[in-house]
Amino acid sequence: MQQPYGLDIWGDQNFIIRDGKAHINYKSSPALIDITTQIRSEGITGPVILRFPHLIAKQIDALYGHFTRAIEENHYQGRFKAVFPLKVNQYPEVVKSIVEAGREHGYGLEAGSKAELILAMANTPTGSPITVNGFKDVEMITMGFLAAQMGHNITLTIEGIGELESIIEVAENTSFRVPNIGIRIRLHSGGSGIWAKSGGMQAKFGLTSTELLEAFDLLKRHNLLDRFTMLHFHIGSQMDEIAPLKRALREAGNIYAELKRMGADALRAINIGGGLSVEYAQHPTQRVRNYSLKEFANDVVFLLGGIMRAKGVEHPNIVTESGRFITASHAVLVTPVLELFSHDYQERSLKLKEVNPPLIEELLELNNMLTSGNSIEYLHDALDHLESLLKLFELGYIDLQDRSNAETLVHLIIKRALYLKQSNQLPEIERLQERLQERYLVNSSFFQSMPDYWGLKQHFPVMPLDRLEQPAIRAASLWDITCDSDGEIGFDPKAPLYLHDVDLDVEEYFLGFFNVGAYQETLGMHHNLFSHPSEATVLIDDDGYRFTNLDEAEDILEILDNLEYDPATVLKQLETRIAESEFMTKEENRDTLSTLKHFLAQNGYLRTTK
Amino acid sequence: MQQPYGLDIWGDQNFIIRDGKAHINYKSSPALIDITTQIRSEGITGPVILRFPHLIAKQIDALYGHFTRAIEENHYQGRFKAVFPLKVNQYPEVVKSIVEAGREHGYGLEAGSKAELILAMANTPTGSPITVNGFKDVEMITMGFLAAQMGHNITLTIEGIGELESIIEVAENTSFRVPNIGIRIRLHSGGSGIWAKSGGMQAKFGLTSTELLEAFDLLKRHNLLDRFTMLHFHIGSQMDEIAPLKRALREAGNIYAELKRMGADALRAINIGGGLSVEYAQHPTQRVRNYSLKEFANDVVFLLGGIMRAKGVEHPNIVTESGRFITASHAVLVTPVLELFSHDYQERSLKLKEVNPPLIEELLELNNMLTSGNSIEYLHDALDHLESLLKLFELGYIDLQDRSNAETLVHLIIKRALYLKQSNQLPEIERLQERLQERYLVNSSFFQSMPDYWGLKQHFPVMPLDRLEQPAIRAASLWDITCDSDGEIGFDPKAPLYLHDVDLDVEEYFLGFFNVGAYQETLGMHHNLFSHPSEATVLIDDDGYRFTNLDEAEDILEILDNLEYDPATVLKQLETRIAESEFMTKEENRDTLSTLKHFLAQNGYLRTTK
Repeated sequence: MQQPYGLDIWGDQNFIIRDGKAHINYKSSPALIDITTQIRSEGITGPVILRFPHLIAKQIDALYGHFTRAIEENHYQGRFKAVFPLKVNQYPEVVKSIVEAGREHGYGLEAGSKAELILAMANTPTGSPITVNGFKDVEMITMGFLAAQMGHNITLTIEGIGELESIIEVAENTSFRVPNIGIRIRLHSGGSGIWAKSGGMQAKFGLTSTELLEAFDLLKRHNLLDRFTMLHFHIGSQMDEIAPLKRALREAGNIYAELKRMGADALRAINIGGGLSVEYAQHPTQRVRNYSLKEFANDVVFLLGGIMRAKGVEHPNIVTESGRFITASHAVLVTPVLELFSHDYQERSLKLKEVNPPLIEELLELNNMLTSGNSIEYLHDALDHLESLLKLFELGYIDLQDRSNAETLVHLIIKRALYLKQSNQLPEIERLQERLQERYLVNSSFFQSMPDYWGLKQHFPVMPLDRLEQPAIRAASLWDITCDSDGEIGFDPKAPLYLHDVDLDVEEYFLGFFNVGAYQETLGMHHNLFSHPSEATVLIDDDGYRFTNLDEAEDILEILDNLEYDPATVLKQLETRIAESEFMTKEENRDTLSTLKHFLAQNGYLRTTK
Repeated sequence: MQQPYGLDIWGDQNFIIRDGKAHINYKSSPALIDITTQIRSEGITGPVILRFPHLIAKQIDALYGHFTRAIEENHYQGRFKAVFPLKVNQYPEVVKSIVEAGREHGYGLEAGSKAELILAMANTPTGSPITVNGFKDVEMITMGFLAAQMGHNITLTIEGIGELESIIEVAENTSFRVPNIGIRIRLHSGGSGIWAKSGGMQAKFGLTSTELLEAFDLLKRHNLLDRFTMLHFHIGSQMDEIAPLKRALREAGNIYAELKRMGADALRAINIGGGLSVEYAQHPTQRVRNYSLKEFANDVVFLLGGIMRAKGVEHPNIVTESGRFITASHAVLVTPVLELFSHDYQERSLKLKEVNPPLIEELLELNNMLTSGNSIEYLHDALDHLESLLKLFELGYIDLQDRSNAETLVHLIIKRALYLKQSNQLPEIERLQERLQERYLVNSSFFQSMPDYWGLKQHFPVMPLDRLEQPAIRAASLWDITCDSDGEIGFDPKAPLYLHDVDLDVEEYFLGFFNVGAYQETLGMHHNLFSHPSEATVLIDDDGYRFTNLDEAEDILEILDNLEYDPATVLKQLETRIAESEFMTKEENRDTLSTLKHFLAQNGYLRTTK
């Protein structure tokens, strides 16, 4: 049977449902709702990112495990190595968990900018690899030399001939230790999936065959061939099928073998970049991935082994840079539901007059006479009447009460017609179904916490943290608290999200957004000045769980400080206004100021609604 | 004649081209390139946002000027009022310029979150309006009461019945002064343009007629009708045509008149929200806006006047909340070009062998025999041969030099064929033209500085700051320095961007991105940890210009600090690594550390390339 909310599709055994609650499927398996309640009892309101380091360790272990097994089974001679690309998530708690869980495997870090390189230099265990991708100036290249000097096992990936020239320059003008050099090649084969642009001849990165030959010449002439250790390619993030990778591997493998034949004796690794995908789908029809990690590892090892055997070349080490796969699952965004904006027009909202406009009388009759046989026809009539009534309102022939009665009657008719025609998949019926979705207002900014939803329409799995034993019958759409109409997640009527009917005056209701641990945090936008949410790192053992980190979202003064406002000046401005107000006594001045300061020390999200 | 780079379409007379340079068309009209050079001479490298406060003043004056004129011409009895929605740009230098330029008009501020409300309370001149939109909890509503208490002319816009209940609660439980109350209505008419979702029955915000009647009842029962002063609607940002606004005005005007008739005696303003659009197009075919500010002002005033006359109701004040229109033009992002990634395969790259594979020989022949008559046919043959040659490489039948020769020959053939068939608009020809675009690498992050390009494919006008008297002949695409294949701006071959052929080893080349002053800064993403760029506020007078603010982008330690790393710990980690390194003497340790510290104190963008 399908699990509620598609947990069997996206959940990867990380969560289980028990007694109507979502639990973490690990050791003492606490319930997410209980963890949330505890955090709120400590005074932290608003959205919270829950981090589970054991899920990062699980992914790192799986990556090494599958490749190690594939290498053994295929009698492959090279070794497997991997780095985590910091751009996927640079937050301190994440990097700490990665370094700790990866230490035994020799897992390293990848950097794509100067700030990330500093993080890699400070955090990578000595001996574990550091790779540096992206465009580099002389300063960044020099930083790479310093890292080598510090004893780091660092490889600078060349993205263009200019960078190689800079490396040669620094090598010749300083006495620093020369780092390893990798070359990114531009493959003819493209990738698949929405980020596929990374691969292929149109890609942003990499050297063509002609440029590769030129680079080889340069390395040779400057006696740097002994530092040229890695060939690099990347065919795009979140690959949804494996065929393009196979083509790319064949192409890169042949280039590798050619380079060896030409005398690149130090060359010993192929870096296959990232691309391991994560399943975000909640409905079986929306699944994207057509391969498993096991198949992926097997294909890479088998293919490279075959090419090298055919060419008589020693097996290269295999390096991967998958990041989404490592951290996506570790983070759950928990958001309170603040309000239901019901468009559930009740018959009791009808306030009919003694004498109603003729079209209202007709709507009443349509509503009374509606049957399964005439419902579509009557629905059309009702929508037509609504248009006419709105026009009559505009022209001043009916009043606001008539307009309200018209809205209510037409909604009653739509609802009954949909009920009678549930199985009917006319596009019109679907549009109307969307119109009847209940709006759940969640205390969160989608721009801040799920930027890929805004930019790429990337879906993230969502489900309530409790009540999972109760039927959820409300087709929902989700609103965030930004002043932006894009801050809304709608659902296709073919893959609806059903939520519970809750009375928020007397009970709480929390939604979890899952697999939000890759990219979403650093890409998060400060729309309306909403900041990175509160976060908690949750360590689970056999007896329970504890927080190793509990960090509330920035308070309002910190938010303004980050925007380069001077908090002292802001406070001074407010004090002056208060002092000058004609509406207050001196004592009220003090009260007002202290109330304001109290608010300024709270985080910027909403706390309560009525 | 069309201005270079479509300046006559998007420029609004703000810039002129003189002596091949882009100048600011104001007073002493300095050249953008000279301002840029001066900033760089002060040691600030990387991208810079130039702010021109006079352009903010120009827009505010235009807004008030056109509405004042329309009010006079139409003998309209209400007044015109306006607020700037802070979410469009909350940066201190922008808010300062807005408050200064708006003071004489009584221009106010709009807030959509607690942090924005604090900014509005600190910065709005007493008497100028503050409006508060978006979802509010009891705390945020209480802040609104405090603002009223401080003497602010503040209106809280109700987005749902729940908020009104919270206002009633605070009014009854505290002695604070009750702010003005606005009600957002949900109109039947939708908007137009890519943000049109804000309007219409499916909108995120606003009360239906039925809810409006309920709210009216609540206000009456709790003696708050005397605080109900404003009716609010918004049909979406960046409206591209005016017809939907007219429909919305008619609908809202009738609702206003009905409420007055029902006894809403304090009601005196209609807030028409934002929506005034900005022209971002560089090519005549891509223009979006079909109305002028003059037409917009006239339509609003004329329509509202007509409805009120017909209904016998006093003319309401008109309030607008346009923000994009006010600040988009004030900011120019200046970015150095770092490198050209030429895919310009020269004949000299060909390194033919004594004996070449037969398909290479055939490519040579195609290249030699190409004529206008056979070019399309030969092009197809060449592309087919390339596929075959790549397959042969994959299978080990040809070597890397052959592959390079094949790439070069095919590119030569494509280029000549395109030259011969310039006017031919086969989709295939267009695809190939895109493939031949020259890649210009710019020192910037598009995710940070133009998030709407990433999320909405919003185009921003771009042009070089100098060389405008020289022909620009290279069809370009633009790359940013992030490690992300989405960090690329391509151009439709039907509306190409032509840039100059520059030798960056001996000369500098700067591009300006225009109209980036609305939304882009706060939405900016920290992908790869690239931060908000450096910024300069430029005050121009008759004698020249001066910087009233010159603020370099965050240095690397600050970037890590903002991410909640402890800078002292990071430094300590680096020091420990250096001390433990086996590759250095004690003295070298000191040098390494001081070089690293030097880099940590620089901003995170690139500085030089070779």
